[in-house]
Amino acid sequence: MVDDCVFCRVVSGELPSTKFYEDDDFVVIKNIHPVVEGHMLVVTKKHFADFMELEPSLYGNMLEVVRDVVKDENIEDFNLVVNKGRVAGELVEHFHLHILPRKEGDGFEFGI
Amino acid sequence: MVDDCVFCRVVSGELPSTKFYEDDDFVVIKNIHPVVEGHMLVVTKKHFADFMELEPSLYGNMLEVVRDVVKDENIEDFNLVVNKGRVAGELVEHFHLHILPRKEGDGFEFGI
Repeated sequence: MVDDCVFCRVVSGELPSTKFYEDDDFVVIKNIHPVVEGHMLVVTKKHFADFMELEPSLYGNMLEVVRDVVKDENIEDFNLVVNKGRVAGELVEHFHLHILPRKEGDGFEFGI
Repeated sequence: MVDDCVFCRVVSGELPSTKFYEDDDFVVIKNIHPVVEGHMLVVTKKHFADFMELEPSLYGNMLEVVRDVVKDENIEDFNLVVNKGRVAGELVEHFHLHILPRKEGDGFEFGI
């Protein structure tokens, strides 16, 4: 655990969160600054600064978690986003993957 | 192979592409409609309509390919994006993952 890391504090329970899923390696939480309704974050329990630091042994399980959560939440269309590095918009340097449920006319412009 | 699928035609070689990487399961190509310089696509060789159809056995290898390609291309900051479904901006219904190298002042507004 990294003391001044907001996601380490969420994982430890020191900061509150709304959890959609949890296992030994990951927690899926509601983003407190959603850009669309239902915006979730898949966060590693262990502190990795970014995607390049993430243990490869977690790659497969992470995408299984994504698949299971979007199924459980009945999300039909969605974007998955990983931002690596400050220039790419990684604001919290603890690995996380965004799940953005999308609906027709939700007003979110993605540009890609 | 799906006859009218542009990525199946890229994989088969019927359509030209600039390849950064290739193995038994994936090809990494230059996006012919880049939103940033160096915009690449990780494309499955087998036709899967979208992320939910993708074989879970490929999850881990796919992220290893991403990691290796961004290392080989010396990309420091980047976004990874998967669009699932038309509403989410999936224009070609053959699974692909976007790699967007990012540079300070590149003018790309991501909004997330």
